[in-house]
Amino acid sequence: MELWYTENQTENVKFSTRVKNTLFSKKSDFQQIDIIDTEEFGKVLVIDGWTMITEKDEFIYHEMIVHVPLSVNKDIKRVLVIGAGDGGTVRELTRYNTIEEIHMVEIDEMVVRASQEFLPFTANKLTDPRVKLYFQDGLEFVKGKINEYDLIIVDSTDPIGPGEGLFTKEFYTDCYNALTKKGILVNQGESPYYSNNAREMNRSFSKIRDIFPISEAYQYHMPTYASGHWIFGFASKELHPIKDLNKEYWNSLNIKTKYYNCDLHVGSFALPNYVKKLLNK
Amino acid sequence: MELWYTENQTENVKFSTRVKNTLFSKKSDFQQIDIIDTEEFGKVLVIDGWTMITEKDEFIYHEMIVHVPLSVNKDIKRVLVIGAGDGGTVRELTRYNTIEEIHMVEIDEMVVRASQEFLPFTANKLTDPRVKLYFQDGLEFVKGKINEYDLIIVDSTDPIGPGEGLFTKEFYTDCYNALTKKGILVNQGESPYYSNNAREMNRSFSKIRDIFPISEAYQYHMPTYASGHWIFGFASKELHPIKDLNKEYWNSLNIKTKYYNCDLHVGSFALPNYVKKLLNK
Repeated sequence: MELWYTENQTENVKFSTRVKNTLFSKKSDFQQIDIIDTEEFGKVLVIDGWTMITEKDEFIYHEMIVHVPLSVNKDIKRVLVIGAGDGGTVRELTRYNTIEEIHMVEIDEMVVRASQEFLPFTANKLTDPRVKLYFQDGLEFVKGKINEYDLIIVDSTDPIGPGEGLFTKEFYTDCYNALTKKGILVNQGESPYYSNNAREMNRSFSKIRDIFPISEAYQYHMPTYASGHWIFGFASKELHPIKDLNKEYWNSLNIKTKYYNCDLHVGSFALPNYVKKLLNK
Repeated sequence: MELWYTENQTENVKFSTRVKNTLFSKKSDFQQIDIIDTEEFGKVLVIDGWTMITEKDEFIYHEMIVHVPLSVNKDIKRVLVIGAGDGGTVRELTRYNTIEEIHMVEIDEMVVRASQEFLPFTANKLTDPRVKLYFQDGLEFVKGKINEYDLIIVDSTDPIGPGEGLFTKEFYTDCYNALTKKGILVNQGESPYYSNNAREMNRSFSKIRDIFPISEAYQYHMPTYASGHWIFGFASKELHPIKDLNKEYWNSLNIKTKYYNCDLHVGSFALPNYVKKLLNK
């Protein structure tokens, strides 16, 4: 028997990959969680039918969400991560000895436990002593916090289901308040290519731009996400992602990366014209 | 009845798109040529089961293959295009009044004629008076030519079938000889992500690097090609793709583009570490 997993990327586009076997399949209080083993991409985490991460290319996503802000501000000590149940973002953060505390707020404990069992390549640093896990709604967690974090990473799913509130103006305002003076917000900013993603990208950036004095977007190649062309938002109170990039410092850390480097950091903020237009830049 | 076109991107990965109807389907002396109309991507040219161009994103490929060299050397007058039967590369070239002659060498006349009938958005400039079409093997055409072209664009299919010879050392040497002193070679350089493409990317670049004193690679987001992460090669005798980029000149031309701009030009040469490693850079 041939087993294939198909993601319906749009109503008219399907992406399918051959499956060796299913490792985990359960409905949590929030969503359907599946972990499969595939020929091409290794282990794959699927939530509500959408590919979250694959063993083959998660390094691209996690390096780009973490090393971009960390090379702009070398004094990041306290970090809040919202979502990111697979643990990959925390794994990259723990490579910085300068970071003292990482609060990870994931609404769905089952995603974390399943990742710890089946996806150790991303989840293996969740037990780092600097990491504190909170299984609650990130929206509620950040509310009322003032001047507490040097970096907030919103590593969310698409703005449907439990991730929806993480794309609202109220939430971004709470993040602004929770950040220190040199604070940076990095968020999963969707994709410019398919119209449903592009609409959410535009909405998310418009809201952030109204709140943060500095608001930029950077792109990365993510082959297992629809279209392969994805965007992170970089917003901050005073640090600029390129003018304040500290190449010498970052290179001196000698962190081995497979995707990220400081030239690519700069290059990733150079967006195609059609993307700039969608972002009203 | 639901009609879907599926590209087998690897043995274990399929990309499928919903089809409205088939516009053209014929076997030429060289290959199977299909043109379909799709819901998501508009008209799509498929050769031997591989997506060549789609109406939705051909602008990315054609802008990146043409405007990168044209912004580095403003004195490009004679251009040789090999392959590119759909006409998109020639369309972008004809936007430069400074170009005096375009020789397009396509082995398969049927691709050109079908494109002229069904893909006018790419083929509509093949009748420009500066364009001369040659329906013959590009390999033979370029042999023995000395100091004739300021730019050679190898807009080929993958190195299987009729495009195979366009990935050989002999061919690249003939291109070197056919170029003028400030000549540039741009070639379709495959993709780093899936192993079969990555192997060909590596082989093609190794060969070009042995022949040209300047040999670089630049990337672009091409959602309808496998993985969405694709590479062009930029090789030349003396012009450097970034140091010799003439931003003021290019911007003064006021050419409206949807993907290309001069910042993105620079950014596209900043490659991920794993790609640099594959290219032995």
